[in-house]
Amino acid sequence: MGLDTDIRKIPTHLLNTEDPVFEFNKQIIDATKDLCVAYKPNIAFYESMGVKGWKSLQKTLDYIPKDIFTIADAKRGDIGNTSSMYARAFFEEMDFDSVTVAPYMGSDSVKPFLDFEGKWAIVLVLTSNSGGLDFQMTEDKNGKQLYKKVLSTVQNWGENIMFVIGATRAEMLREVRSLAPESFLLVPGVGAQGGSLEEVAENELNEHCGLLVNSSRGIIYASSDERFADEARRKAMELQQQMELQMVKKGLI
Amino acid sequence: MGLDTDIRKIPTHLLNTEDPVFEFNKQIIDATKDLCVAYKPNIAFYESMGVKGWKSLQKTLDYIPKDIFTIADAKRGDIGNTSSMYARAFFEEMDFDSVTVAPYMGSDSVKPFLDFEGKWAIVLVLTSNSGGLDFQMTEDKNGKQLYKKVLSTVQNWGENIMFVIGATRAEMLREVRSLAPESFLLVPGVGAQGGSLEEVAENELNEHCGLLVNSSRGIIYASSDERFADEARRKAMELQQQMELQMVKKGLI
Repeated sequence: MGLDTDIRKIPTHLLNTEDPVFEFNKQIIDATKDLCVAYKPNIAFYESMGVKGWKSLQKTLDYIPKDIFTIADAKRGDIGNTSSMYARAFFEEMDFDSVTVAPYMGSDSVKPFLDFEGKWAIVLVLTSNSGGLDFQMTEDKNGKQLYKKVLSTVQNWGENIMFVIGATRAEMLREVRSLAPESFLLVPGVGAQGGSLEEVAENELNEHCGLLVNSSRGIIYASSDERFADEARRKAMELQQQMELQMVKKGLI
Repeated sequence: MGLDTDIRKIPTHLLNTEDPVFEFNKQIIDATKDLCVAYKPNIAFYESMGVKGWKSLQKTLDYIPKDIFTIADAKRGDIGNTSSMYARAFFEEMDFDSVTVAPYMGSDSVKPFLDFEGKWAIVLVLTSNSGGLDFQMTEDKNGKQLYKKVLSTVQNWGENIMFVIGATRAEMLREVRSLAPESFLLVPGVGAQGGSLEEVAENELNEHCGLLVNSSRGIIYASSDERFADEARRKAMELQQQMELQMVKKGLI
């Protein structure tokens, strides 16, 4: 579940609390923690509020039960010594289990995130936005698209790597799975961005599941009144049940 | 000048001050502000220190004289609504003049940074690290490398765009300038990363200058004792004079 918490979108009755962003997240977490396997705060939303936002983020991270996987959706990536600093920010200064990483700057921009035991780098391969077509689909001399080169190449850089695969490119999902049969895939774009869970699951589930399906706005902003947490729970449960159905179909549970 | 301020590298006598990172930056800025046209804090270094780091960053930004251009070296980029949040973080919550942006996610990940009057997006094209070769050099069917595609494409997305061009790829500099004759180029990698200012200037200066040459570690860590600010000034002046010489040679000043 994506925690893209925007102070301009949360129910107005929360604005009187000491930390409205954290209060919103706290109630969302309380209402959904038995239904989801991971929380994914979108770091931009906290960063846009400056120091106050980073405090809300830290409190949110501390509040998430320890058995639930945490993803800092931060799309970081820079030269080696700088990526090391980003890794320290999310893995040491905060205690996230994983962080999303942009691949444009290559191996030494990704590898520093792999030096932390038990932590994961989740590398962008195929993204669900319209601009994803601009460069990710560029074909090389052999007709191989850039996103496939990224997927094949980055797998060899170490352990504890997952990949971001945008769900709105359903026709490519099967090919992605064949190029990375064992990898865990983080699939954003189910819900507000329009992807179909069924299509994703059919093409992407492997024998270990291998799939983290994300929904953000479709759950957390299901209602903007005082019942927002109940409505979020209802939406989260819908998605959890759809996922369960797909896993049963594949004989995984 | 890059402010890649690492608390593990600054002179130890500063560690007793209330905010050692800011104290270091303050003395560096005092010693160099008449010599440089832009300061470029490397955001990772501040982020790695959590809330404390963001406070040091804000104080540093406030301390930089208003007539000096400021660059948030952050390499951000995400889907549209999220890039908007990053833009708000750096242009509104803080008051940076520009931010570095990663292009992998395409147009809607870059364009939100262009919606702020008088602010600039500085988009990664060619980076100076070894991993820069992994994807940026991928050739398409016509033999055109990805970095050239990024350079040609992104120029059409709006005004107020500059490009990051790694100085350690000197042989490509002339070609970059021919593809983007009018653009301002931010060239990192002079100094610690090994690029030659002369080579960069010969190939990249245009009739408006069109060039921001960066040095970080080579200046700010020139000395680790109490004379660090004087030594930084000495190094900054060396680079300023080399740049001046190149500009005189080109008839720009």
